[in-house]
Formats: sequence, structure tokens, C-alpha cells
Amino acid sequence: ELRDCIVQHFAGNHQLLASKSILITAGPTREAIDPVRYLSNHSSGKMGFALATAAQQLGAQVTLVSGPVQLPTPPGVTRIDVVSAQDMYEAVLAQVEQADIFIGCAAVADYRPEQIADSKIKKHQDTMHLSLVKNPDILATVAHQPNPPFTIGFAAETDDVVRYAQDKLEQKRLRLIAANDVSDTQIGFNSDDNAMQLLWQDEQGQLQQLSLNRASKLQIATQLLQHAATLMK
Amino acid sequence: ELRDCIVQHFAGNHQLLASKSILITAGPTREAIDPVRYLSNHSSGKMGFALATAAQQLGAQVTLVSGPVQLPTPPGVTRIDVVSAQDMYEAVLAQVEQADIFIGCAAVADYRPEQIADSKIKKHQDTMHLSLVKNPDILATVAHQPNPPFTIGFAAETDDVVRYAQDKLEQKRLRLIAANDVSDTQIGFNSDDNAMQLLWQDEQGQLQQLSLNRASKLQIATQLLQHAATLMK
Repeated sequence: ELRDCIVQHFAGNHQLLASKSILITAGPTREAIDPVRYLSNHSSGKMGFALATAAQQLGAQVTLVSGPVQLPTPPGVTRIDVVSAQDMYEAVLAQVEQADIFIGCAAVADYRPEQIADSKIKKHQDTMHLSLVKNPDILATVAHQPNPPFTIGFAAETDDVVRYAQDKLEQKRLRLIAANDVSDTQIGFNSDDNAMQLLWQDEQGQLQQLSLNRASKLQIATQLLQHAATLMK
Repeated sequence: ELRDCIVQHFAGNHQLLASKSILITAGPTREAIDPVRYLSNHSSGKMGFALATAAQQLGAQVTLVSGPVQLPTPPGVTRIDVVSAQDMYEAVLAQVEQADIFIGCAAVADYRPEQIADSKIKKHQDTMHLSLVKNPDILATVAHQPNPPFTIGFAAETDDVVRYAQDKLEQKRLRLIAANDVSDTQIGFNSDDNAMQLLWQDEQGQLQQLSLNRASKLQIATQLLQHAATLMK
């Protein structure tokens, strides 16, 4: 630990996020169909946990709101566990006022079943229809607050990655978006590596883009936070 | 390991399942909606893995077909990993001819989405309808074969546990069914303990019932296998 401190000190970024409070969401959400079954997605939570680790190492106060994942809490990070998108929305809104930076890295389920059955649904028919309703949009809610934190989103896509990311940046009023192609298994949901495009609008409203080449998720997380710190100046 | 062998030898059941081949399914299945999203359930796989461990300790040749779980393979057990119910069905049918005993412990998804989208579904509407179709019934398929293995099923229910288990025993032509109440978190999906009712029909076609009181999943697994060995004689 002393060695890490010394290394970071001479690396010159030991206090890049000192005095900053960062709120990060990570992992998937699970949307209950009945007490046994649920809808979810393939997020492992690794990227969000790497961001929490990197932010803490850069001196920030970090709160991590995590969906169900199999990962240990990074040292020095405050963790709040949630299950559903609605839970995550409530946990984020309860914490966001204190946050200087919000990073929505969780793969929040866009839809949830319209009704949750109290007991296990019995299967009789050959087909079944599940009616889903939209979950609250956590990222857009945070970014549309009167005095929002510096809000960073993620776009995990399987095609037209940059185009979807640009739409999301503008529609949700994000300050920065990280786009990655989850159809590439080398850098996908359960991988330890990642690579991404960062997109943002400069002060003249021009779209800017920066590629972070393939590296460990912790290295990518550090680069992303360093870039965000530069934009916040 | 030597110690375990000696203990088992003097316990007198070291060869209770010697020369038997056992095929066990464990864990949940995941049913893809698109490359990112899926339907699943809360099975941790712990009970199925405990059965594999216990069967191996009782001298059996064990093949474990497992859905996506976070568990190490028990020593001496052959493991086949699968994702969807259809994958599990195919893996089981490829192995079942060699099996003397089949234990369907997996929480197989009853339904899968009618279509799997090739790319991530974009969310535009406020509501979404998911059409589901029934998955193949692995347990019933195995038990209805011309020369079936001794087939054991599980009924994980939230209410009317014994009644549903009895129906399942008869409709699927099982030799033994283990019923447990997954609404009880002390013995539920992610717990290390379990408790269950065993139900079977005796040679006169009379329904018989035996309670296995709360104990570790490994102890419950051993008791279940010992009881199955008795019924097979």
C-alpha cells in the first residue's frame, strides 16, 4: 500500500480527483417476473468496479451502486447493493446530490414485467406473453437535474456503436459517453480487457472523439477518469 | 483425501453407488432475448453440485450438466457446461443412454423467447411484448424413454409444494421427486442448507413420503441418494 502511494505520488495524478465525490453504477439489474424467474443481461460489473477502484486511487470519495454481481468491494469504496432498475434509480437519487461526477456504467434493464406474480407462474400453455413496461431512465434523470453532476454514460452496443453513442450523448444531455462494442468477446461483458471510444461535445458544441485502445479494464478506467478530469477544468 | 476414504469405508456406504453411472443437471438456464438480454431464474446450482459431490463419494461415475453458475467442479466429476434449456436438453440426450440414474436438479426455464434478435433490441416504445414458447421437457423426455434410467426430479415451488410435486411425479413418470419450498429463504436457492419432502410410489402404486429435515445441501444430497439406492434394489 505504501508502495502504491509512492508510485501514484510520483506519477503525478495522486490527487487528480481529490475532494471529488463520485457516484458510479455497475453490473446488471434483475427484473422479477415471479419469485423464481427474472429478466437480466450479461453485464459482469467488472468495468464499473474498475472505475470505482481507479477513482478511489485518484483520490475521490467513491459510492458504488451495484446490481447482482460476483465481485469483491474495492478497498475504500462505499457499496450499495441493489437488484432491480427501480431499486437502482432510488439509490442513485438518494446519493446524487453529493456527487460531483456520476458515471452510469450499469447495464440497467430498459424494461420490467408489467406485473410481478406473487407465486411461481405455472406453465400450462404452449406459448406465453410477457408484457413489459419501461424502467425509469437513471442517466437522463441525473443529467436533467437543475444542477447536475458531470454525467458520464456508457453505450454497450452490438452494431452502429458510435452512431448510437452520439444519439445517447445528445438526448440524455451527457457530458461524456464511452462507447464499446459488446459483440467483440475480446472486450465484451465478462472480459478483463476493454477498449472504447470516448465522445463528447467541446465548448463550441463540436463532437470530439478519442479512442482508448485495448487494455485492462483498470487501465481503461483510469484513462477515462483522467480525461473526464481534464474536461471538468 | 485418504482420511475421507477411510471415514467413508467404515461408514459402510463407500460402494453404495459403485458401478452406477449418474447423470445430473444443475443450475439455471439462460434464454437469450438478444445478444445482451436474457431470461433466467434464481437457481445457484448448489443443490445439483452437492448431489454430484455426494454421488461421487458414494462411488458413482458422475456426469454433471450445468447451466451458468459460479461454482467449482467437484473432484472426480465430469462437467458439461451449457447455457440454454435447448443446450441442456441436447447434452442430456447425448449422455442419457449410459446413465443408470438421472437427476434433473436444474431449474430449466419453461419458456424461451420465440425469436432471438441478432442485434441488441432498441427501446423506443413505452411497453414491449415478449412472445415466449415452451422449452422441451428434459425430465419427461428422459423418463418416457423405452428403457429409462431411474429418474429423479425436483419441484421447487412457492406454495402447495407437495400437491404440485405429486402431480409432477405422476405426469412425468418419475421414480422419485424431491419437493422443496423456495419461498423459505433459510433453505432457498442461494442457501447452503436445504430441507425437502421425498415422494414416490411404492410397488403397490401407493404414494409414499419421507421428510429430510434441514441440513447442509451435501448431507441432504447423500440422504437422497441413499434413499434412491434403496428404492432401486
